[in-house]
Amino acid sequence: MNYRMVFNMLGKIVLSATALMLLPIIISACTGASDLLALVLSALITAAIGGLLLLIKPKSNAIFAKEGFVIVALSWLAMSLLGALPFLLGGIFPNYLDCIFETASGFTTTGATVCTAISAIPHGIGFWRCQIIFVGGMGVLVFVMAVMPLSKERSMHIMRAEVPGPSVGKLVAKAKNTAMILYAIYFALMVIEAIFLLFGGMSAYEAFTTAMSTAGTGGFMVLDEGMIGLSPYLQTVATVFMLIFAVNFNLYFYIILRKLGIVAKNEELHWFLGIFIVCIAIITFNIRHLYGSLGEAFHHAAFNGASIYSTTGFSSFDFDKWPTLSKCILLLMMLLGGCAGSTAGGIKTSRFIILVKNGWNELRRLAHPKYVHALRLDNKPVPESVVRSVLVYFSVVVALVFASVLIVSIDGCDFETSVSAVFACIFNVGPGFSKVGPVMNYAHFSYLSKMVLTLDMLIGRLEVWPMLLLFSPSTWRKRSMYR
Amino acid sequence: MNYRMVFNMLGKIVLSATALMLLPIIISACTGASDLLALVLSALITAAIGGLLLLIKPKSNAIFAKEGFVIVALSWLAMSLLGALPFLLGGIFPNYLDCIFETASGFTTTGATVCTAISAIPHGIGFWRCQIIFVGGMGVLVFVMAVMPLSKERSMHIMRAEVPGPSVGKLVAKAKNTAMILYAIYFALMVIEAIFLLFGGMSAYEAFTTAMSTAGTGGFMVLDEGMIGLSPYLQTVATVFMLIFAVNFNLYFYIILRKLGIVAKNEELHWFLGIFIVCIAIITFNIRHLYGSLGEAFHHAAFNGASIYSTTGFSSFDFDKWPTLSKCILLLMMLLGGCAGSTAGGIKTSRFIILVKNGWNELRRLAHPKYVHALRLDNKPVPESVVRSVLVYFSVVVALVFASVLIVSIDGCDFETSVSAVFACIFNVGPGFSKVGPVMNYAHFSYLSKMVLTLDMLIGRLEVWPMLLLFSPSTWRKRSMYR
Repeated sequence: MNYRMVFNMLGKIVLSATALMLLPIIISACTGASDLLALVLSALITAAIGGLLLLIKPKSNAIFAKEGFVIVALSWLAMSLLGALPFLLGGIFPNYLDCIFETASGFTTTGATVCTAISAIPHGIGFWRCQIIFVGGMGVLVFVMAVMPLSKERSMHIMRAEVPGPSVGKLVAKAKNTAMILYAIYFALMVIEAIFLLFGGMSAYEAFTTAMSTAGTGGFMVLDEGMIGLSPYLQTVATVFMLIFAVNFNLYFYIILRKLGIVAKNEELHWFLGIFIVCIAIITFNIRHLYGSLGEAFHHAAFNGASIYSTTGFSSFDFDKWPTLSKCILLLMMLLGGCAGSTAGGIKTSRFIILVKNGWNELRRLAHPKYVHALRLDNKPVPESVVRSVLVYFSVVVALVFASVLIVSIDGCDFETSVSAVFACIFNVGPGFSKVGPVMNYAHFSYLSKMVLTLDMLIGRLEVWPMLLLFSPSTWRKRSMYR
Repeated sequence: MNYRMVFNMLGKIVLSATALMLLPIIISACTGASDLLALVLSALITAAIGGLLLLIKPKSNAIFAKEGFVIVALSWLAMSLLGALPFLLGGIFPNYLDCIFETASGFTTTGATVCTAISAIPHGIGFWRCQIIFVGGMGVLVFVMAVMPLSKERSMHIMRAEVPGPSVGKLVAKAKNTAMILYAIYFALMVIEAIFLLFGGMSAYEAFTTAMSTAGTGGFMVLDEGMIGLSPYLQTVATVFMLIFAVNFNLYFYIILRKLGIVAKNEELHWFLGIFIVCIAIITFNIRHLYGSLGEAFHHAAFNGASIYSTTGFSSFDFDKWPTLSKCILLLMMLLGGCAGSTAGGIKTSRFIILVKNGWNELRRLAHPKYVHALRLDNKPVPESVVRSVLVYFSVVVALVFASVLIVSIDGCDFETSVSAVFACIFNVGPGFSKVGPVMNYAHFSYLSKMVLTLDMLIGRLEVWPMLLLFSPSTWRKRSMYR
């Protein structure tokens, strides 16, 4: 383990966290909010820590897969710990753990909150709270890569750890250029949404925080009631953009390149929209008695369905009051999440496709032992190693869900609360059901549960392995037998 | 597909179902119960159907993997449909679907009941209800193999379908001789338990039905309250025997062969007991405030823990009243089930070991790409194909659980009921929580839910593939490209 190198990289990452705090400071100064001091102090502390870490000069630049994973895991932890400073110094939450929970929830684009009086948060910190979602959506390290000069080898190992898998993971940026183009698309879409929201009568502050939150599929808002009670126009804008941000960004890249054929044939997109339409149809039918008209039922089914499927976590209605069937469908949508290469959480639609196709292949193979049929996605064969890694990933996620539910259930909340809280955190959704429903929050959990759920959010956002590696003793050995 | 051959085999299987009905008829005749006519009629109908099927003579004796799976799936369906006749003709349940549910629940050793007045069932049918658990525990077809002359090739394909996997499945009987020895052990252990129960003051009828139910890890009893309220002695006997029947029967074979070293080193046994002890310790601690003493808490934790972990489903206390943590642990134990090669349900401890070790290996492989380490069980390397099939099996089981919960939740029961009912059925446990808790039953479910849960029981008992193959169109094509 090249410790010096890891610390040096961490220093760079912490310094870019400082850079992120500048915008909230400007907003706080311009609006004369009461949180200016807290934000400036946070920036100074972060800068100091980053500067100190940067003093550790690496003796060698050797970086291996292990270092890549450790850097990613530690930077997300560091971002959560330091990004929590404005909340702590601004006195928003009663203790540091709550601040960390809220920050991790932001960076991981979960959107689970421990805040009970959201509108009371001053504008600077309120903006910070949504800004971290925007940054976290694309990946903390993708952001760092985009602004910092790094050797190609170094970027590669870190990228691979933050965005695992070439075809099934969060937004993949193979080269710096691609990363910057995708970031530009991401930014542009966010601004377009903000403009639509401004037309709907939102203030600039509300519109941009909401748009950043949608872009990262996070779900924080600056309004106490969230999207509940907003006009149907605003809710519809959000519905459309939640779906847009849950689609593989590479497709937008192809649209710019006018390769519409590739987009139209994208298999993951077909499944994504197909699953969405079927789920929404069933939910609409299931909840129709709760609303005045079928149209209204459809509106709320589409909004909350899009919100959960994209793992954003907005709500236009307290869907905890929906029948069990609809809630179970929402839980399934949480698990599935959006498309690979989007800012959404969950296991991703492409992984689900692989699981389904593989199960089907297995069935045929059992009946016809000589049947050999490679699994295909987008008409290309999927390597057996990818199929296997998806299977392993899935088994580990299920195991982690079980383990987390066990620990969270020590609090004695009902079964529905415990299960949906873990689902909502590990799949980066935000709200669950019952005591963590859309009009509730996570403040009531014990310290232990909050710690486990914070870890779950990070584990889910980094797709399991980087965080788990921190707990493996072999990671910390200075020299390893296997290199 | 060799249809004639399949029907002919089905005929033999149906005829052996007739043979099984002889014992209940004798018991009914001896005790002068009111169900003699119903049982005799059922036996006659079954014999007639079996005889008719046997008239279909196969043109060729060719049997392939596909035929093996189809025979297994169809015979379990046939046993459930025909085994339900005594309940139907005896007027025990208001409709045929309930009769089928109860019968499938018995044969699959689930023990979920739709019966609201158990003690009112006449002795003949009451015995039949527990006898099918005893037969189902070892496998309907293992029973047929043991009594019917069959070619070696034919047995092999059928055995493989009913007891998939050489090391991770239900009781594996490689040859007819082994099957008979294991059956003898099974029978002897059942009789020993019955004798212990007789000493505790049970009647012969109660003792033998309970012992058969324990042996198959089923959980039907002839008493309305089940094990609740019985003496601590009887409950302790049941605790011990539930654990005994959840252990790989091959180990008892080794004990007879005096190869105690193999038994002591068996890795699955270590994990099984280790998991049991840890879970029981946590539950005891978690429920201690509900009981007068720590000893009493331990007694109930051990009884209900053993009952759930062995997937028997007896209860000494309404564990639905336990705190959420304990219930979540029970849910986890349902999923794990007993050891491979036992009569228990669930995914089996050995599969769990493979999943855990594989996850751990994957973690090390990611950090050290050159790390190559074969997964070992009992100090023998596990072939990659077995690991892969365990991963696929697990992913399909999780998918089936999700799909079933969705359909069952249409009934509008609470989340806990829907989830635990599916767990209890697909893992062949019996009781769940809330509306399907230990003192409740499955009678309130809709027809659709009962059908899904019945299918789940069969899917779980046959370890997924045989039942699923029935739904694949390619299974029913007369000639297949892949042979």
